[in-house]
Amino acid sequence: MKVGILGGGQLARMMIAAGRPMGLDFLVLDPASGVCAADYAPHVQADWQEAASESRLLDCDVITCDFENVPAAVLAQLAAHKPVYPGPQAFAAGQDRLDEKQLLDSLDIPLPGFSEVNARPDLLAAVERLGYPCVLKTRRLGYDGKGQKVLRTHEDLEPAWQTLGGQPLVLEAWVDYTHECALTAVRSRDGDIRHYAPSWTVHADGILKLALAPAPMADATLAAGRAMVERLMNHLDYVGVLTLEMFHTADGLLANEFAPRPHNSAHWTIEACICSQFENHLRAVCGLPLGVTDSRQPALMFNWIGSLPSREAFLALPDLHWHDYGKRARAGRKIGHATWLVSDRAEFHSAQSAVRSLLEPQLATLFDRLLDDTA
Amino acid sequence: MKVGILGGGQLARMMIAAGRPMGLDFLVLDPASGVCAADYAPHVQADWQEAASESRLLDCDVITCDFENVPAAVLAQLAAHKPVYPGPQAFAAGQDRLDEKQLLDSLDIPLPGFSEVNARPDLLAAVERLGYPCVLKTRRLGYDGKGQKVLRTHEDLEPAWQTLGGQPLVLEAWVDYTHECALTAVRSRDGDIRHYAPSWTVHADGILKLALAPAPMADATLAAGRAMVERLMNHLDYVGVLTLEMFHTADGLLANEFAPRPHNSAHWTIEACICSQFENHLRAVCGLPLGVTDSRQPALMFNWIGSLPSREAFLALPDLHWHDYGKRARAGRKIGHATWLVSDRAEFHSAQSAVRSLLEPQLATLFDRLLDDTA
Repeated sequence: MKVGILGGGQLARMMIAAGRPMGLDFLVLDPASGVCAADYAPHVQADWQEAASESRLLDCDVITCDFENVPAAVLAQLAAHKPVYPGPQAFAAGQDRLDEKQLLDSLDIPLPGFSEVNARPDLLAAVERLGYPCVLKTRRLGYDGKGQKVLRTHEDLEPAWQTLGGQPLVLEAWVDYTHECALTAVRSRDGDIRHYAPSWTVHADGILKLALAPAPMADATLAAGRAMVERLMNHLDYVGVLTLEMFHTADGLLANEFAPRPHNSAHWTIEACICSQFENHLRAVCGLPLGVTDSRQPALMFNWIGSLPSREAFLALPDLHWHDYGKRARAGRKIGHATWLVSDRAEFHSAQSAVRSLLEPQLATLFDRLLDDTA
Repeated sequence: MKVGILGGGQLARMMIAAGRPMGLDFLVLDPASGVCAADYAPHVQADWQEAASESRLLDCDVITCDFENVPAAVLAQLAAHKPVYPGPQAFAAGQDRLDEKQLLDSLDIPLPGFSEVNARPDLLAAVERLGYPCVLKTRRLGYDGKGQKVLRTHEDLEPAWQTLGGQPLVLEAWVDYTHECALTAVRSRDGDIRHYAPSWTVHADGILKLALAPAPMADATLAAGRAMVERLMNHLDYVGVLTLEMFHTADGLLANEFAPRPHNSAHWTIEACICSQFENHLRAVCGLPLGVTDSRQPALMFNWIGSLPSREAFLALPDLHWHDYGKRARAGRKIGHATWLVSDRAEFHSAQSAVRSLLEPQLATLFDRLLDDTA
């Protein structure tokens, strides 16, 4: 069975690493040259628009994505020829922030207040309704903090409009959250859903820096969050792994956005779970039995953004797993991660000094705060 | 750092799978076409004798092997240009059964009686000394039960001589062992040695069928076995993973043979250990810090010889990990394995029926016996 993957980044790379031992074969299509998944499978360099007429892709038995912004229309064209999982509808729903919020709202998934902003007057009305601070975002193609501006006072309106105006926007109410978290689950072709432990996520500069799992969370809160994920997956007739990113507030969970693919916040599943998010995504997509999502050990993941710290130093730590994506280093780019496994959560505290000493100052500060907050 | 691997079979494939996340790059050289490691790294198809003049191989930073019969002379030529780990001396020592036995003997590593056999009269004298049953083996290029004949009575002498005579041979005394086992360890460039848990191995038709780890073993026996491995590794100034295959007898361990590479009996380390034999082999070879060899869970490995059983059925078992090597099926060929992880050894017994029901009759019988013997 051959799987075609649209997008050849680290998610494709880790999917293929998980899939080859299951006897799956792969092809990657990506408009960019030198993508990192090409170390693991043949890479066809082509624009998204060419995908539906690319015979090597159409030769695959099933098609999936490592990138949420593959145009839904392209996926719909492909779906006329081959199974595409998750389906085009999951991408269409998530590629426009306004559509996404309206969908979540319609499924009784609580989320922060939001308003459509198409013109200057809309913005003023929306700010009036939602109050300061609030966040102005492009409706399309934003990720990792790109395409958004925080509005704290009336002074911020004009510069934000100058930067983002002239395209469809959405204004979001500021959420007074205690922390962010992410719920990842997998749904099979026949509707079976399995949940991974929740991740406690820490972002800075709009990009994920740390994820700890299982996130401490009240049973009722977790159950409510998982029910939201199930409503979303069932509504989309979703097949594969999906992550719902959420704000944890005093009043419970509020949805932020979902990703129709394996997600950075669940990379710890590679070592900590019997069956990782990557393996389970492929099992679902290929119609194979789902794997167990239970965690064997608590885990803390460090994202390497822009540059890698010393590999030798990290490999010398006994419970550290290193993931170099084979990508060229570039500011703001995710080029690797490491996962620290412990026997029980107390060990995050008792054994932290060796790990902490290897972190750059900003990350060390976030790490300290994460350990304090999850103590 | 780029690692050149001589031999492109499943051991190279699993090495590369372990090494890419550490940021290592790879090249495989193998005389055969369509080798299974080529799914993971570029493959240069060339004879062993051409290796030392192959510029793409000489461009690598370090060279290792996935095959114990790469000619030691070729490795010695390569070692004049690039680091070769394990070194040529480890291969030279193991490529001739007589040399290997004499080496083990010189290191006070107990082993079954043996005699050099170069001509008909040698054979008669050797049989007289060692008694029936005994095993006549070629000194070179035997593996997986190939190149050997069991002699049970005087009647077996002539047919065995007809088949094997005319080349250097060795006669081995029959060993009345309770079971076979294997000790795997890794040694770093600076002489640090770490041991994996012992494997209890089950062979049939001369080929490994099952491995259970940790093998139940008296502490003193294990300590003695590990001391033998250390004497061997230190003598060879060994760098990388080595397995010493042994007979467990009423009088303790007797050495059978060693393999200068990751070994089939330790494939369970991929899931059961923090750092697998493949990752640790590369860490040693590349001069990176060694990883932890502790087991997290007991494991039982099934070898798939000649054909794969139903992937779907095995993937439906919650604690089963599947390894398809991407090789064409052929009688007697190792084309995959599966590793079953349990929380504690009692679970091998309490949960055996689901696994057993999927095994072909011969393997099911060996499995039953293994569970009985290790109860």
